[in-house]
Amino acid sequence: MLNGLMMDVPLSIPRIMDYAASVHPDTRIISAAVEGGLHEYSYAEAYPRIGQLAHGLVAMGVKPGDRVATLAWNGYRHFELYYAVAGIGAVCHTINPRLFPDQIVYIANHADDRVLCFDLTFLPLVAALAPRLPAGIKLVLLTDRAHVPSEHGLEGLLIYEDLLAGQPTHYDWPDLPETTASSLCYTSGTTGEPKGALYSHRSNVLHSMGAILATPDCYGTNSRILPVVPLFHVNAWGLPYSAPLSGTDLVFPGPKLDGASLFTLMDEQRVTNAWGVPTIWGGLLAAMRAAGRKPAALSIVGIGGAAAPKSMIDAFERDFGIAVNHGWGMTELSPIGAVSREPRSKQTVDQRIEARQSQGKRTYGIEMKIVDDAGRRLPHDGVASGELLVRGGFVISGYYNNEKASAAAFDSDGWFRTGDVARITPQGDLIIMDRTKDLIKSGGEWISSIVIENLALSCPGVAQAAAIALPHPRWDERPLLVIVRAEGSEVTREAVLAHVAEAIARWQVPDDVMFIEALPMTATGKISKLDLRKRFADYQFPSDSA
Amino acid sequence: MLNGLMMDVPLSIPRIMDYAASVHPDTRIISAAVEGGLHEYSYAEAYPRIGQLAHGLVAMGVKPGDRVATLAWNGYRHFELYYAVAGIGAVCHTINPRLFPDQIVYIANHADDRVLCFDLTFLPLVAALAPRLPAGIKLVLLTDRAHVPSEHGLEGLLIYEDLLAGQPTHYDWPDLPETTASSLCYTSGTTGEPKGALYSHRSNVLHSMGAILATPDCYGTNSRILPVVPLFHVNAWGLPYSAPLSGTDLVFPGPKLDGASLFTLMDEQRVTNAWGVPTIWGGLLAAMRAAGRKPAALSIVGIGGAAAPKSMIDAFERDFGIAVNHGWGMTELSPIGAVSREPRSKQTVDQRIEARQSQGKRTYGIEMKIVDDAGRRLPHDGVASGELLVRGGFVISGYYNNEKASAAAFDSDGWFRTGDVARITPQGDLIIMDRTKDLIKSGGEWISSIVIENLALSCPGVAQAAAIALPHPRWDERPLLVIVRAEGSEVTREAVLAHVAEAIARWQVPDDVMFIEALPMTATGKISKLDLRKRFADYQFPSDSA
Repeated sequence: MLNGLMMDVPLSIPRIMDYAASVHPDTRIISAAVEGGLHEYSYAEAYPRIGQLAHGLVAMGVKPGDRVATLAWNGYRHFELYYAVAGIGAVCHTINPRLFPDQIVYIANHADDRVLCFDLTFLPLVAALAPRLPAGIKLVLLTDRAHVPSEHGLEGLLIYEDLLAGQPTHYDWPDLPETTASSLCYTSGTTGEPKGALYSHRSNVLHSMGAILATPDCYGTNSRILPVVPLFHVNAWGLPYSAPLSGTDLVFPGPKLDGASLFTLMDEQRVTNAWGVPTIWGGLLAAMRAAGRKPAALSIVGIGGAAAPKSMIDAFERDFGIAVNHGWGMTELSPIGAVSREPRSKQTVDQRIEARQSQGKRTYGIEMKIVDDAGRRLPHDGVASGELLVRGGFVISGYYNNEKASAAAFDSDGWFRTGDVARITPQGDLIIMDRTKDLIKSGGEWISSIVIENLALSCPGVAQAAAIALPHPRWDERPLLVIVRAEGSEVTREAVLAHVAEAIARWQVPDDVMFIEALPMTATGKISKLDLRKRFADYQFPSDSA
Repeated sequence: MLNGLMMDVPLSIPRIMDYAASVHPDTRIISAAVEGGLHEYSYAEAYPRIGQLAHGLVAMGVKPGDRVATLAWNGYRHFELYYAVAGIGAVCHTINPRLFPDQIVYIANHADDRVLCFDLTFLPLVAALAPRLPAGIKLVLLTDRAHVPSEHGLEGLLIYEDLLAGQPTHYDWPDLPETTASSLCYTSGTTGEPKGALYSHRSNVLHSMGAILATPDCYGTNSRILPVVPLFHVNAWGLPYSAPLSGTDLVFPGPKLDGASLFTLMDEQRVTNAWGVPTIWGGLLAAMRAAGRKPAALSIVGIGGAAAPKSMIDAFERDFGIAVNHGWGMTELSPIGAVSREPRSKQTVDQRIEARQSQGKRTYGIEMKIVDDAGRRLPHDGVASGELLVRGGFVISGYYNNEKASAAAFDSDGWFRTGDVARITPQGDLIIMDRTKDLIKSGGEWISSIVIENLALSCPGVAQAAAIALPHPRWDERPLLVIVRAEGSEVTREAVLAHVAEAIARWQVPDDVMFIEALPMTATGKISKLDLRKRFADYQFPSDSA
């Protein structure tokens, strides 16, 4: 083997902003501020503040490797923390504020966070949890002195803008090894305790490159992207890095994520594309229907985090002419593993909608295989389905301080077991069938809960749907369909089942339908099937069932 | 410091094609074949041939680290060699066939090439040089058996298609360390012996990412790119890697690079963008003027390798509505160091032409500084000019087996000395003033040869222009302007000088003009000022000079 003769310059998170500030100095970052109103500045203005913040963190005693936690919405200060914390060799640990307080306490202690930076919104939460946080943790309120409430009850509370004030704007970023940890994110953990994914400078840079290569139309000096996906979970799908890399404007929505607020912000700020989970887009679609139009400049929505229902893809593409990028990812993948691609030649809207039901194609940097129960590779023929395993430079190699979970997460070749069941077509399209744990095993055959839910959602009068497996004396498991009716609808059990039965085999049709007021959601906006299974644990299928 | 917990998967050249074949299977590679006619196939069809070639190379005894040289035009077989050679851990050594035969012999022996793969065009050249090539070198003719001339005089000549025939289409690419050498390219060496830049898998992947980030409009599933820039020099500016990474069609022009041939190929194949050196574009512009239109789908030209004259930028942008991406690079940078960016808001055509006279902004992965004679950093204020130094993951750390040249190429901080003199604006725009060795030092002040040439080229009747420094008894050096008249023009010395004098200070105006039939060119299509200085070594400036 012969080694190349090229400079060894590590991939580096602060160097992304150094590049953005010098090459795209006028690119905008607009934030709906927690304090109210809009904050706007440029990459050239953000970069010296990141330098000041780095100095401020060092001055308050943050050391390389220390975990600096955040409880914050999508806004410019949170963005600045991403860069300054990683830039000094510390670890930006984003915590999901929608988790149960006990989980937040567990995570902060498991990570042994040394600092916690939080938005005004979360002052009461932090005040309540403070006694249970790691000993010696420093608390930083993400605001300026004028907005600090007079009575907050937190001794030694630091103010973010005070940390920056008077610090030099230039920070001489160290050449960290590119494998240095930059950020930490815990999976929401619908089962068991949350588990931490510890990203590196290298993995975040490579992930961003892969994302830009996959959906180039989202980026560039004429694009303006709104991440509804939170900075507090999986790096907002990499946007804090990929936007500066590509000179893309960022619009951070702050705390208001209802459809009407998002519509107004997108419309007024001429957002060209926005990324989020299906539940968010349901709200936006309602606002768009109420307004009778789309936000003025919106041309692409990215949907991930959970499978996008066909009815949602149909509404965006057909009714509003908005391209849907349907993706698949996981916290353990930084997160984007696959996403829709623009086709080589023009498609009809029906073809587009059909194509975008798949979760798209793998991103550069991710390799995929599907395997049978014995771990043998299955063909990518669009027919065979099996557990999806992945490998790549932005896939975790273990969970943070969690040997037990790490040991179970990989196959003998070191590939990560996603827990998803999928097919892959010869054209490279990934079709997620289900989570392995959500599949319904009836009489030795598998039934996909996603297929049933998609059909149910296309039934008039159905607002939300979840299919879950419940024990059955004869068939091991049978599907129960749980429905939230649309406002004003009185759609019946029989109507829903008849609608679903039109498109799948008889034995796959759910045995029963239960109507409830609202589906339980996880902290990351997915339907919690675990909670549903608990709720219906005592349910008995009708005696004529299946 | 804390290490991230992410998989260690090396950046890899064959993995680019693995990705392209699975994600962009239908993307096209079209080649004007040396044997005549067009060859066309898809990435999905190219990839198994690359696998066969890898097996064939191993079967003929190629070992990791071995140098496999090429003397070949831009075509699909050359493209396949890029991937297969690097994929087995060997080094693809592209040799510029336009070099003097002595230089080719020097380079092949300096690199100790074990294999030489060459197009039919170069059979006579190889036959003539064979006795002087490294002992034991294996010769491979890039064609099939049907096209091998009956009398070629080369004992043991191997046929490319025979190497592939019968080999398995799947090759199990090893996980090479990403610093493994993948490719070797010698600078054309206008002074001294050629020097080798030894690229790695990592550096080529990072360079391609940087290029795609910089000019995203060139790439994607609706783009079709024609590299006039040769695969035999600096990786055709990274296109063999960046096109598959982005799902971009490739059109390889083969041996015919005159304006009329390029026009027809671009027109018929609906090429959307094309990259090359200024001399090539002069030919294409003439063909476009003759046709009274541009090639049907052409919307972007990339110009690099030498400064693009303003008149050329003007013609493309104003007369034909074609966007010019003006870039700067070097063999030692893989090569793209900077390139024009699309602006955030619409510009008038005059503003565009003005903006595109700069060589654009640095690519991601390249850091730049300009320094004075003492090596002190100069401000990026658009005024200060000094030698340009660069640093980055796709910059060489030394020359291959050349300690002397390596020792002189870096400053004490390890930055690479480009030998170019430049200014950098506060907006990050790079303005190349000259090569340090081409600057004209008159009475202690520097005169830029590029500025004079640009002005001369805008004078009606001037086809080509070169300003060179010649010794002067009073001023140390003074500029001499060498002109090639446009066909049929009788433009005079006085007219040219008067035109130039309109836009620069009196002391910068050349002292004299010499008209010649053709400018001497280097093997990479640049004007050879070394040859011009030799030719006019005995020239005496008029006694009233300056």
